[in-house]
Amino acid sequence: MIMKRTHNKDDIIQVGLDLVLSRGFNATGVEAILKQANIPKGSFYNFFSSKEEFALAIIDKFVADRVEVFSPIFSDQSLPPLERVKRSFETLIETFEGAECSKGCLLGNLGQEMADQFANVRQRLEHSLQEWIKAVSRLLLQAQKEHAISTDMNTEMLAENLISSFQGALLYSKVKKSPEPLKNFIHLYFDVFLGRRE
Amino acid sequence: MIMKRTHNKDDIIQVGLDLVLSRGFNATGVEAILKQANIPKGSFYNFFSSKEEFALAIIDKFVADRVEVFSPIFSDQSLPPLERVKRSFETLIETFEGAECSKGCLLGNLGQEMADQFANVRQRLEHSLQEWIKAVSRLLLQAQKEHAISTDMNTEMLAENLISSFQGALLYSKVKKSPEPLKNFIHLYFDVFLGRRE
Repeated sequence: MIMKRTHNKDDIIQVGLDLVLSRGFNATGVEAILKQANIPKGSFYNFFSSKEEFALAIIDKFVADRVEVFSPIFSDQSLPPLERVKRSFETLIETFEGAECSKGCLLGNLGQEMADQFANVRQRLEHSLQEWIKAVSRLLLQAQKEHAISTDMNTEMLAENLISSFQGALLYSKVKKSPEPLKNFIHLYFDVFLGRRE
Repeated sequence: MIMKRTHNKDDIIQVGLDLVLSRGFNATGVEAILKQANIPKGSFYNFFSSKEEFALAIIDKFVADRVEVFSPIFSDQSLPPLERVKRSFETLIETFEGAECSKGCLLGNLGQEMADQFANVRQRLEHSLQEWIKAVSRLLLQAQKEHAISTDMNTEMLAENLISSFQGALLYSKVKKSPEPLKNFIHLYFDVFLGRRE
């Protein structure tokens, strides 16, 4: 994406999000963001009161982008609800593979790096993950009503575990530089663990 | 642990490991480590050729400590093999709860923060995770022979997924500042997913 002509807050957020996804939060300096966004030094603090506030802004941007990807999948009436959940994860895995198994999920990355140090960031991440869990949970409940998953499962707990386990598989795939752990996650959850037992 | 009287490489590693677990790698400066270890400025590079080499040293220390915790559990003949796997995760969860749901696992934390930037660190993390997977896989194979888990499961894939999912649950527990996701992980895997279906 060419950014050289523009100078605004949205550019800082977009460039900053890409850099933080690649390098991590603490390793991304304000100067590097401004340089890449072609924005004069000093203007960062016109837009953000602190680097922490900038972290909140990139989380919101990341979540908005993610919602745009998920919305058509989650509401796709041509697919059974459980297939929509599976498809949403597969879409993230394709993006991850397209980036040569790097970057991963900003929510997981910042959670790991910042949750113990920045209460505001931690809360924003928690809220964002909860919204994701809620959306998946609704689909799992529907799947349960249609008897696609066992009726003795707590769908909210299951949604939380699915997303946590996805984050873990993503992390290990990033370390392994291979999508295999993510593919195993898809196979085990959707072909084995969630299979009906009645 | 009081470290003020000593001045050696092991102290730098111990103090550095604690700091990196708390703050992350990039946010932990060499000066902060030396100050906390009460070691004169400048001596860091007598022991480590680079901060990256220091990262490798704290990974090895973390793994050695972890092996000390796991060895008696993994070889405990009074417990069935699957119970030993469960117990090993529960022990890590107790430690995490004791630290007020902070810090987490160095392998996951550095994987998230460093895997894309430092090839050596990434490889050391991958190797360490693989050793952990191998140890769990051996116990799962034993459990399978004793018919405690389904015979149609690939125990190596399962071990990899268990450890990945544990990392994900740990991450979400760190964000949530609650052990609930980890407890759900234990419940879902050991009471539900791994249940025999034959």
